[in-house]
Amino acid sequence: MNDIQYEFGMVGLGVMGRNLMLNIADNGFSVIGLDLDPEKAAAVETEAGAGKPVRGTTSAEEFVQSLRKPRALMLLVPAGKAVDAVIASLLPLLEPGDIVIDGGNSYFPDTDRRVVELEAKGIHFFGMGISGGEKGARFGPSMMPGGNREAYERLRPIFEAVAAKVNGEPCVTFLGNGSAGNYVKMVHNGIEYAIMQLIAETYDLLKRGVGLSDDELQSVFQDWNQTELQSFLIEITGVILQKKDDVTGQPLVNLISDVARSKGTGKWTSQNAMDLQAPVPSIDMAVLMRDMSKLKEERVEAARLLPNDSLQVSVDTDRKEFLNQMRNAFYFAMISTYAQGMAQLKMASEAYNYGLQLQDVAKIWRGGCIIRAACLTDIRAAYEQNSSLANLLLDSKIGDDLLSRQEDVRAIVKTAIDKGIPVPAFMASLSYFDAYRTETLPTNIIQAQRDYFGAHTYERVDKLGFFHTQWD
Amino acid sequence: MNDIQYEFGMVGLGVMGRNLMLNIADNGFSVIGLDLDPEKAAAVETEAGAGKPVRGTTSAEEFVQSLRKPRALMLLVPAGKAVDAVIASLLPLLEPGDIVIDGGNSYFPDTDRRVVELEAKGIHFFGMGISGGEKGARFGPSMMPGGNREAYERLRPIFEAVAAKVNGEPCVTFLGNGSAGNYVKMVHNGIEYAIMQLIAETYDLLKRGVGLSDDELQSVFQDWNQTELQSFLIEITGVILQKKDDVTGQPLVNLISDVARSKGTGKWTSQNAMDLQAPVPSIDMAVLMRDMSKLKEERVEAARLLPNDSLQVSVDTDRKEFLNQMRNAFYFAMISTYAQGMAQLKMASEAYNYGLQLQDVAKIWRGGCIIRAACLTDIRAAYEQNSSLANLLLDSKIGDDLLSRQEDVRAIVKTAIDKGIPVPAFMASLSYFDAYRTETLPTNIIQAQRDYFGAHTYERVDKLGFFHTQWD
Repeated sequence: MNDIQYEFGMVGLGVMGRNLMLNIADNGFSVIGLDLDPEKAAAVETEAGAGKPVRGTTSAEEFVQSLRKPRALMLLVPAGKAVDAVIASLLPLLEPGDIVIDGGNSYFPDTDRRVVELEAKGIHFFGMGISGGEKGARFGPSMMPGGNREAYERLRPIFEAVAAKVNGEPCVTFLGNGSAGNYVKMVHNGIEYAIMQLIAETYDLLKRGVGLSDDELQSVFQDWNQTELQSFLIEITGVILQKKDDVTGQPLVNLISDVARSKGTGKWTSQNAMDLQAPVPSIDMAVLMRDMSKLKEERVEAARLLPNDSLQVSVDTDRKEFLNQMRNAFYFAMISTYAQGMAQLKMASEAYNYGLQLQDVAKIWRGGCIIRAACLTDIRAAYEQNSSLANLLLDSKIGDDLLSRQEDVRAIVKTAIDKGIPVPAFMASLSYFDAYRTETLPTNIIQAQRDYFGAHTYERVDKLGFFHTQWD
Repeated sequence: MNDIQYEFGMVGLGVMGRNLMLNIADNGFSVIGLDLDPEKAAAVETEAGAGKPVRGTTSAEEFVQSLRKPRALMLLVPAGKAVDAVIASLLPLLEPGDIVIDGGNSYFPDTDRRVVELEAKGIHFFGMGISGGEKGARFGPSMMPGGNREAYERLRPIFEAVAAKVNGEPCVTFLGNGSAGNYVKMVHNGIEYAIMQLIAETYDLLKRGVGLSDDELQSVFQDWNQTELQSFLIEITGVILQKKDDVTGQPLVNLISDVARSKGTGKWTSQNAMDLQAPVPSIDMAVLMRDMSKLKEERVEAARLLPNDSLQVSVDTDRKEFLNQMRNAFYFAMISTYAQGMAQLKMASEAYNYGLQLQDVAKIWRGGCIIRAACLTDIRAAYEQNSSLANLLLDSKIGDDLLSRQEDVRAIVKTAIDKGIPVPAFMASLSYFDAYRTETLPTNIIQAQRDYFGAHTYERVDKLGFFHTQWD
């Protein structure tokens, strides 16, 4: 047994857990880790090196008894049953006032259930999204905690120390009640899916559409990262396109299968948006295109039966002009995507009583996380100016910016249509804008049809009430 | 008490239940109805008139005892808890071999649960989608039963008699196991949402985009119903556009609010498609546009801040040519929508072991239901020729037809983009086609990104296995 009373505990010492422990120790907090695998428990001490207040153990009793009270411990175990199992095993050892943080991508209703179960025993439960991958965990992630506001004060110094910093501001803050943290992380991932799909569509248009070489492609993304598109995902795309295969010397991406995998958080975002009646079409299409990518055999057959002869159509814009349009189109679509995701968060906050402050969400997404991007500075400013803004498109600076770029996104989508290159995420980003700024949609026809065949009634523009008509 | 042993029983005597009873009686089958409301129980006898073998009762005991064994009884009560409550109240009176049919829009997992619960007591439970509204129930609906194949023989003569007929073939057949019937009806409704949205977008393009008058609009839909677009939804749109408001004399649709309601089956279709990884973008966008329509106040503000000046742009095609393109575009998008829905059914059949025959689904959708359409004859033929067809787009006749119309859908979507008119369902129908026939999608970039930031690994095109790269 060890005499130190550790400031913080970590359960689950995979790469993420170990890296976060080392990060915590680097910032001067003592930390103990628990893993049933003795190799992992030992590895964290080895990685920390001598003289660091880092300990690994396989004993739950030692782990809990070594933590300073009120205890603060984080679970980094696979979402789902493993979280419940770990909680059940630790619960008999914990005391009222202790704090348990789930740092995984848990499905938000699970977190709400656990909050209720643990609060009944006086234990505070936090769902906290963490973004940034292994590297972020080690050197500064974006952290999205939700739970009990008072209990957060026990965690604040540690989290603010280990989180990524942007202009000295830590990329962590208390977000809201219950599952607010998991929900914000879920939508973060939905936005991540959409921006990745937008990048993929851009790559396709530049490569198959305009015929850019591998080298040119790489430098486009590298250049764009010096513009208003500056963001982690644009940056790594430039790096990725530079990487050569060891054996063939070809760009490695050219050898990577187009069957894209997914782990479910994007799908949850879309499915829950539908429950909330929050339109997030760019995210929906990104989720869908991963599914489409999996239908490989069918697509190979369809390509043979339904050949795309339009690819040969030449584009009559010059390349420089096209790249300029493409950059504006990407910016437009990226902002449209953030607008959709933020609007979903607003509706979720109202539906689930999270009490989210969207300026805080934008603030902590500026650094550390996968969707960090220069444009989040403007997004944060929009919500700081009006924290109850219904939609980013209604902010005058952002709205005017989109208006000034709209012709370019229209041109790009039309070129894709001419070429037969699928750009569902660009299309969705544009039609979201066009639909949102349409005062009167043609959905009156739908209400009339529903009343015709199902007697569902309709409302009128000229008087209140519900009306039914005998149409024929 | 009554001495007749009734052939069929109906629980829930709302308009749908009463109409279906009258339909059953018209076809020579005796039928008894149960409703706790004495007025409804009496109404069905009054509506049937003297001499018809129709009885209404408020007594569950009388109802059950009056049914010929093995009993066949249908519930037409609101989906959800009401179904369970009615089942619980009747169960003590039923005997092994009896058949209970849920004729409502139940969520398919509820049906699977009920099948298990009732089969344990020897009672056969059917989930059966019914489409056609009040009029369909009275004069011939499309009926989509799933459950126990042998037990269906007891129901077959009645259902085949009351269902809609197309060229003498009844629009009902045994579809498959468990919740197959509810699932098929759910996807039917998803397709219905998409086609209604396509009609709304068409109406918007013709009205705001090309400036057709109300009279011209009405005649376009009326004319189209004489072409390959012939379908119930096109037909009723023509009728709807003809209807004048009693007071103002204006077309009634012009006075109907654009806030569109929904009851959930479209959303279930999209959400479950995401679970199955089945891409159904046109349905997704139709569900989403109903949600978008509900953001009325926001849209009014956005229209002021982000005015659409592109509406003034003149279209340089002549009107006749535009209408021709529009008709082809609609056909293309409608077939794309059916392809998506049928592919979802195929994947659901494999995932849930339904044993669906898609030629049967197409057959029973040709008449009676809301999505009945002339094109279902070709769709049926495609699956009759190859019942394991992975996607309608792979049928040579349908594929060639779409290829011949693709330029028109491209032209129409580009015009909508120029005009700033949102056409998300047309865009989705087109990008589905373009993505499905793309042999190599740019999703290799997404796999590289996922490996970069999350070490999720990737697959290669040149060798088997999962690979991880240190990218930077």
